[in-house]
Amino acid sequence: MALTTLALDGDDTLWHSETHFAVTTERVLDLVRPWVDGDAATAHLLEVERKNLAVFGYGVKAFILSVIETVIEVSDGEVPAGRIHEVVGWAKELLDHPVELMDGVAETLDQLAGSYRLLLITKGDLLHQESKVARSGLADQFDAVEIVADKDTATYRRILDRHGIDPAEFVMAGNSVRSDVAPVVELGGWGVHVPFHLTWALEAHDGAGLADRVAVADGFAGLPAALDLLAARAAT
Amino acid sequence: MALTTLALDGDDTLWHSETHFAVTTERVLDLVRPWVDGDAATAHLLEVERKNLAVFGYGVKAFILSVIETVIEVSDGEVPAGRIHEVVGWAKELLDHPVELMDGVAETLDQLAGSYRLLLITKGDLLHQESKVARSGLADQFDAVEIVADKDTATYRRILDRHGIDPAEFVMAGNSVRSDVAPVVELGGWGVHVPFHLTWALEAHDGAGLADRVAVADGFAGLPAALDLLAARAAT
Repeated sequence: MALTTLALDGDDTLWHSETHFAVTTERVLDLVRPWVDGDAATAHLLEVERKNLAVFGYGVKAFILSVIETVIEVSDGEVPAGRIHEVVGWAKELLDHPVELMDGVAETLDQLAGSYRLLLITKGDLLHQESKVARSGLADQFDAVEIVADKDTATYRRILDRHGIDPAEFVMAGNSVRSDVAPVVELGGWGVHVPFHLTWALEAHDGAGLADRVAVADGFAGLPAALDLLAARAAT
Repeated sequence: MALTTLALDGDDTLWHSETHFAVTTERVLDLVRPWVDGDAATAHLLEVERKNLAVFGYGVKAFILSVIETVIEVSDGEVPAGRIHEVVGWAKELLDHPVELMDGVAETLDQLAGSYRLLLITKGDLLHQESKVARSGLADQFDAVEIVADKDTATYRRILDRHGIDPAEFVMAGNSVRSDVAPVVELGGWGVHVPFHLTWALEAHDGAGLADRVAVADGFAGLPAALDLLAARAAT
């Protein structure tokens, strides 16, 4: 079967995101250094984020609320309120940050638009993701933009149903095996992993059981080659 | 022309929301009482929310981040960090709060489902709104659920286009004239205002210029009567 529809992830696939979170995390570690070392603070923050995920979801506001909990907890309540005010300011910086496309995105999308129906499927703060799509200058490349609360099989099934897409002709490409690739393969689709050197720990996935249905792209510019590989497999 | 499609707002139209925010706001006023009186704190919070709206958007996480800024500012940084930790806990309570339907919603929706194609159009945190829709038990009543970052004319136009709906046959019903009624009327559609006794100050609207295209419902159970009134106008 021919692969007709290519869906792309946003954060860390089309544009930088984790880089900005990493800068903020460094500021958090600096802030709490009077009370705990970097490793302990990182571990505490990750544990708070993990606990809060079901109720706060993904995105900057969720992250910053978890940071605020963390700095108060690891400082045993000693962190001055003025520093917490700064942390809220970091949320605004993250949300207002200019969109920086990953290398090769604009040219590669132009090329792919000739061969595939393109969708954008991204998760996080609704307003922030809409704003990033608008500021990216890429919106016109996509047949549809889907901003979702989580990227699980139920979410992908709903999107495929809505657009009348057979999973067997559907490829999802992104930097997170856990969110962008594994659930799509589970539904009978195809995935391209476009690795990025930073991956949030809660997105970790060992890739087990996915090999036949997944190709790895060498950066965004490597996407067409990875898709050709999958298309050849899909045709047999 | 016949009115074929009825879209409903979620918060304070189908289920209670502002009531829970009001309870949290009372807690905020108690928290800052050592430094400022209730009126000054309310005014400060509203001003912070207004400034933050463009970057934080709507919803519980945005509200709580504005509350945190407010309590730090009005206390001149004297609020203990432990109290701010409590405020983050209030976010979780708000997000986890059971969904309480407004009076008459379930029966009235059953009745309306026979006459109209029903949509749900709601704004706020994506994850929280999805969770409220699921927990409301009403999801199956709706042909589509649209969770949006803001309810302006561009948003409604996008939704009408996506579902192939002529504005002249479209009615939106909700508690906010500003968000649920005015932009739809501007597009050539119809509105039902279902007043709720609590309205967030940033949703205020004087209703000017809307009269011909709007009916006011006496509670959710008054929706069918208000719709009959509009249908008669639309038919002439």
